[in-house]
Amino acid sequence: MTWHRKHLLDIETLSREEVLTVLNTAKAFKAVGERAIKKVPALRGKTVINLFVEPSTRTRISFELAAQRLTADIINFSAELSSLRKGETLKDTARNLEALNADIIIIRHSAAGAPHFLSRVLNASVVNAGDGAHEHPTQALLDAFTMREKKGSFEGLNVTILGDILYSRVARSNIWALTKLGAKVTLCGPPTLVPSAFERMGCQVCHQVEPALRQADVINLLRIQHERQRKGMFPSLGEYTSLFGLTKARMKLTKPDVLIMHPGPINRGVEIDSDIADSDHSVILEQVTNGLAVRMAVLFLINGGHPQELGVN
Amino acid sequence: MTWHRKHLLDIETLSREEVLTVLNTAKAFKAVGERAIKKVPALRGKTVINLFVEPSTRTRISFELAAQRLTADIINFSAELSSLRKGETLKDTARNLEALNADIIIIRHSAAGAPHFLSRVLNASVVNAGDGAHEHPTQALLDAFTMREKKGSFEGLNVTILGDILYSRVARSNIWALTKLGAKVTLCGPPTLVPSAFERMGCQVCHQVEPALRQADVINLLRIQHERQRKGMFPSLGEYTSLFGLTKARMKLTKPDVLIMHPGPINRGVEIDSDIADSDHSVILEQVTNGLAVRMAVLFLINGGHPQELGVN
Amino acid sequence: MTWHRKHLLDIETLSREEVLTVLNTAKAFKAVGERAIKKVPALRGKTVINLFVEPSTRTRISFELAAQRLTADIINFSAELSSLRKGETLKDTARNLEALNADIIIIRHSAAGAPHFLSRVLNASVVNAGDGAHEHPTQALLDAFTMREKKGSFEGLNVTILGDILYSRVARSNIWALTKLGAKVTLCGPPTLVPSAFERMGCQVCHQVEPALRQADVINLLRIQHERQRKGMFPSLGEYTSLFGLTKARMKLTKPDVLIMHPGPINRGVEIDSDIADSDHSVILEQVTNGLAVRMAVLFLINGGHPQELGVN
Repeated sequence: MTWHRKHLLDIETLSREEVLTVLNTAKAFKAVGERAIKKVPALRGKTVINLFVEPSTRTRISFELAAQRLTADIINFSAELSSLRKGETLKDTARNLEALNADIIIIRHSAAGAPHFLSRVLNASVVNAGDGAHEHPTQALLDAFTMREKKGSFEGLNVTILGDILYSRVARSNIWALTKLGAKVTLCGPPTLVPSAFERMGCQVCHQVEPALRQADVINLLRIQHERQRKGMFPSLGEYTSLFGLTKARMKLTKPDVLIMHPGPINRGVEIDSDIADSDHSVILEQVTNGLAVRMAVLFLINGGHPQELGVN
Repeated sequence: MTWHRKHLLDIETLSREEVLTVLNTAKAFKAVGERAIKKVPALRGKTVINLFVEPSTRTRISFELAAQRLTADIINFSAELSSLRKGETLKDTARNLEALNADIIIIRHSAAGAPHFLSRVLNASVVNAGDGAHEHPTQALLDAFTMREKKGSFEGLNVTILGDILYSRVARSNIWALTKLGAKVTLCGPPTLVPSAFERMGCQVCHQVEPALRQADVINLLRIQHERQRKGMFPSLGEYTSLFGLTKARMKLTKPDVLIMHPGPINRGVEIDSDIADSDHSVILEQVTNGLAVRMAVLFLINGGHPQELGVN
Repeated sequence: MTWHRKHLLDIETLSREEVLTVLNTAKAFKAVGERAIKKVPALRGKTVINLFVEPSTRTRISFELAAQRLTADIINFSAELSSLRKGETLKDTARNLEALNADIIIIRHSAAGAPHFLSRVLNASVVNAGDGAHEHPTQALLDAFTMREKKGSFEGLNVTILGDILYSRVARSNIWALTKLGAKVTLCGPPTLVPSAFERMGCQVCHQVEPALRQADVINLLRIQHERQRKGMFPSLGEYTSLFGLTKARMKLTKPDVLIMHPGPINRGVEIDSDIADSDHSVILEQVTNGLAVRMAVLFLINGGHPQELGVN
C-alpha cells in the first residue's frame, strides 16, 4: 500500500487503490482518537493552514483538530476577515500564506476548481475541503470509511443518495468513490435536481423514492439547503418532505439493516424524520468521528507519511 | 479531599467540601501561572471544546488559556459562525462536537439550564461557563478563591453584592458558594432589581446602600449592563450612580480593609469610581488571574485528576 | 551583540546596533523555517496575546505562527468581539489580558502611541504591530532584513519609497530603520501625500517619479488603500496609476538589478503592474517569509533570549 500524491484535490482522479490506502490509514488514526492521549507526533513542526473562503465551521474544526492531533501548527484564515475583501486575488492570498513556510493549505472555496488551481501555483500541498458544486473528497472518504466499517465490503452494496444531487459536491465525490470501490449507486430526487445526465457517471437515476429506498443497503441523505435553495427548481420544504423526506412511513420500506447517513447538519423533520436520525440505523455521528480520522490520514499521507509506520499494510 | 463529579454545572448542588476542593486545587494551579514555564501535561492529548452560543471574549479566553496550560487541544466554536444559524438544535451541535472525541465541552448559553441539558445527552464532561440568568459557577469559585486568599476565612465574613441582582448569574452563583462556605451575604440595589424573594436563598436583602457598605468586609459589584438594560426596571445610568454607585463619598463609609471586587469589565464612573477601581482595596485584576487558576482546577478535576498529584491535601 | 529592551515600540528609539541585532537573530530563525521541524522551544510555557484592536489578518497570523514556532501559548483577542465595544478602556482591556499571566502583548491599534501607552501601564512586554500612522516596526525590520539579504549592505544603498507616505506607518518605520543603517532614502509621490517636511527625517523628497525610480537600488511600494483613501488629497486610482504606478514603461527606467518590495496586499494594476509583481525583481513573497523570522526574533529577544544561544554573534 503506497501513496505518492502531494495533494488531495478530488476523488475522480484517485485510483481504487489510493482510496483504499486512505481508508486503511484512517482506521489506524481512528484508534488514536480512542486512546487516553489522542496525539501523535507525525506532523510536529509542520505548518497547516485552513484557508476557508466559504464559511464552514464543522469542516474547519475537523481539519483543525486533525492537525492538532498530528501535533502540527495550524492557522485559521477566514476570508471574511481577510485581504480578499480588499481585492487581493486568491492566488496572491494563497501564495502569501505559503510564504509562511506552510506545508499544507486546506482550501474551502465557492468556486469549483479553486483547489486544482492552487495546486498548480503553490509548492505547498493542497487539500480540497469543498469547492463549489464540484467535489468534497474528505466527505466521500469518510462516508466510504463508515460504509466499509459497518457493511464490511463494497461488493454489491446498494447505496442510494437522496436529495438535491445537481449542485451537491458531496454527491459527486460519493459517486466517484463508491463506483471505484464497486458499490452500486442510485441517485434519487425530483427530476429538476437529479437529471438523467448523472447516469454517465455510472449511477442509476431514479425519480421515485420508494424503489430507491427498498433496494438500499445504505441511504445517504443530502442536506436540504433551504437557506439558499434555488427558486423554481426546488419544491417547498413541505412538498419536499412529503415527496422525498425519509419519514417513518417510508422507513418501513427499507431493509432491516439499512444504514442511514447524512453529512450534517441535519434538518429534523425536513429531509429526515427526527426519530430516524436518532435510531440505531443512523450512523450520522459516527460519520463525524470518522471524518476526523480520515482527515488525519489525508494530512499524514500528503505530508509523506508511510502507512507502514502506523502498522497499516 | 476528593472529587467525583464529571461535570461542573452549578454551585447550587456542590457540597461545601467540593467547593473547597476546587479552591485548594486552584491554589496549586495559581503557582503554575507564576512559573517561568506556565505549563503542565495533565490534559495532554485531551480535547476541550469552547462552545460559546452567547458571546464572551473574556471567559472564552480564560478557558482557552487554561486548557492550553494543561496541554490540552482546544477548539473554539462560536455560535455566530455556526450551524446553529442554519436551524440545528443545540443537542445536535453538541453531539456533533462530542463526536470529535471531545473530552470536555465548555458551554456559554443565553438559556438557563442549557449545560444541565447537555450533561444529560452527552458522554463528554460539561462545564457551565454561564447560562442565562441562572449560574456562572467558575466566576463564583474565582470570587471565593480571591476572598479566601485575601481574608483567610469565610467564617463571619460579610459580603455585600451590589447592583442588578435579579438577572445576575454571577450573583446567584456567588450566593450559593458564599452561604455554603459560611459567609454572610447581603444583597443591595434598587427594589426592582433586588426583590426580597432572595432572602429565601439565605441572604439579607437591603435596599439602602449605606448600611450595606458599612458592614461589608467584601463588596462585590456587579456590572451594569447598560447596553441591554431592561426598560422600566432600571433607573438611568446617572441615577444609578447617584443612588448605588461606589463613589468616593460612599467609600468613606466602608471598613478600612474592605475588599472591592467586580467580575469585569468595569464601567468606570458608573457602578464604580475610577480611582477606587485602581486603589489598593480593589482586587479586580487578581480576580482575572485567579479565574485562570480556578478554570485549570475545574478542567483538571472533571477530567479525573487527583488533587493529591499536585501536592494538595 | 546584546539586547536589553523589554518592549519593541518603534524603530525611532532603537540604535543601529539594536536593529542589527534583530536582523542577525532573524537570520537564525529564518533557518528554523526551512527545517523539516519548524519549531524551537525558546518560549515554551510563555503566554503571548495578540491584541488586535484594528483588524489585520496577515500581521496577526505572522505573529501567531511566530509564537507557535517558538512553542509559546498564543491567544488571539480581536477588539471586534471584545469588551472594548462595551466601553472598556484600552488600559483596562490590556491589564485584564496581562492578568492572565501574559508575558508578551502584541498590539495593533488605530491610535498612534497606543503601544507606548501600554508599555507604561503594563508589566508585560509590549510589541507594536502597527499604531495609526505612527510606526510599524516589524514591517521595517523585515524590509531591512530583505534588503540586506539581497543587497549585502546598506552603505550607499538607494531606497525609493513610493506612494502615500503621509499617513503611512510603514514608510515612517522604514525611514527610521534605513537612515540608521546608512541607506539613502528617497520619498516619492504626489505633493499632497509626500510633504517636504519629511526631509527633516533625513530623506530626500521627490515629486517626480522618473528620477526617483532611476536612482533606486530598491523600490519599496506602498499599498494604495483605495478602500479608505482620503478625499481631496488623493487622485483617482486611474490617475494615481498613470502618474505614480510602477508600470512596465517606468520599469525600463530602473537599474537592471533593482529590487521591488511591497508590504502587501498588492493591488495588481494600481500601484504595481501585475507582471512586475511576479518578476525576478520582486521579493514581495520573500518579505512575508522574512516577516515571520523577524517576528520570531523580536519575541525571542524581548523575552530575554540571547542571540548567542542561536549561534549569532
